[in-house]
Amino acid sequence: MRIAELSRQAGVPVATIKYYLREGLLHAGERTSPNQARYDDTHLHRLRLVRAMVQVGGLSIAKVREVLGALDDPERSEHRAMGAMSAALTPRHFEHDDKIAYEQARAFLKRNKWPVRTKLPAFQALVDVLAAARDVGHDRFIDHLDRYVDACMTMAEADVEYAFMAKTRDTSFENVVIGTVLGDAVVAAVRRLAQAEVSGRTLGEVKDEDEPEPDGPDCVENEWDGD
Amino acid sequence: MRIAELSRQAGVPVATIKYYLREGLLHAGERTSPNQARYDDTHLHRLRLVRAMVQVGGLSIAKVREVLGALDDPERSEHRAMGAMSAALTPRHFEHDDKIAYEQARAFLKRNKWPVRTKLPAFQALVDVLAAARDVGHDRFIDHLDRYVDACMTMAEADVEYAFMAKTRDTSFENVVIGTVLGDAVVAAVRRLAQAEVSGRTLGEVKDEDEPEPDGPDCVENEWDGD
Repeated sequence: MRIAELSRQAGVPVATIKYYLREGLLHAGERTSPNQARYDDTHLHRLRLVRAMVQVGGLSIAKVREVLGALDDPERSEHRAMGAMSAALTPRHFEHDDKIAYEQARAFLKRNKWPVRTKLPAFQALVDVLAAARDVGHDRFIDHLDRYVDACMTMAEADVEYAFMAKTRDTSFENVVIGTVLGDAVVAAVRRLAQAEVSGRTLGEVKDEDEPEPDGPDCVENEWDGD
Repeated sequence: MRIAELSRQAGVPVATIKYYLREGLLHAGERTSPNQARYDDTHLHRLRLVRAMVQVGGLSIAKVREVLGALDDPERSEHRAMGAMSAALTPRHFEHDDKIAYEQARAFLKRNKWPVRTKLPAFQALVDVLAAARDVGHDRFIDHLDRYVDACMTMAEADVEYAFMAKTRDTSFENVVIGTVLGDAVVAAVRRLAQAEVSGRTLGEVKDEDEPEPDGPDCVENEWDGD
């Protein structure tokens, strides 16, 4: 297909596609004349993957390039490639030098019997969050996390399984990207739905739109709809 | 304290503080002369809270204003104020019209016996993620989510408890903000640490920095360190 058709099908403007081509996020099409190239389903698929990372994951172009680099590098072992992708997909929040937050993160891993690997970007991200919590006076935010451990382990087991249910190395890596980027967004959404459920149960009445109302079927007010 | 001292203690530049004052994110100081004002610990605390939302949560100034508006409005019930904050803290990812994703989200809630409230921003966010997954050919990403349900419920119960362990309405609301904003970041970090643990167990050896190495104590290579 021509670039205009690719643009239409992917829902990505032509100018953006050209930018991705220049930045190496998208492989070149097959040149059919000095000014034209032909694109196929691999381009469409890659474009949609980039779009998911940028729009849902909020990743920068530099980060997307890093992820795709790991995805495309056939030399790396599966475990290392997954590590590189996970690193690229883990934000650093800000610079700080909070040694207490560092020790809190370390002690958190130790008491949960997880290996302590302080160079993992996820470890650094955890220290950042604890530092930010301490900064606003929530020194004991760390205690709250112990209740997350089993939940995160359950999700991680599902994630790793999702990554390896794929039949090829390529799709397995793609599953990691999808599982991580969309996974973050989906956990945030589902956790909020669960919070609304728990809070509704505790503080107020929860109404289900699909249940008919005794007084009239179509006038269901949403709780927690942000007014 | 003077604005320079406030800036130093909060780690926020004076120009940014003035911007927050103009935007109404920070209440005015007590005027001591036509050009000077005095600030106190309430300003310092509020500044740090805004910083956590912007730097860790990645919220826009408009979103921060929305959250603080709900936080500061004494008229709202606790449940409604929490809903408004949760709404402000829930991202919409992109515009689409994917009816299948909508039905997938609906069916997901129904089979997990959660109330179906389609106007909740978190419901919309869930539909967005499912649409993005379908867009890249992961139509069955939804199946993966069933394994997240219990985990998210456990976290939500901890979150709501964290919110209400506070003694006053103000600190309770603040706990919601902290729990939601830092909570997202922390779940992302801890889930990655758990993934590294599970993946390491499945694919390669996991080393603990705190365990002495048989061949030499200081030469521990981190797995998953992104090279």
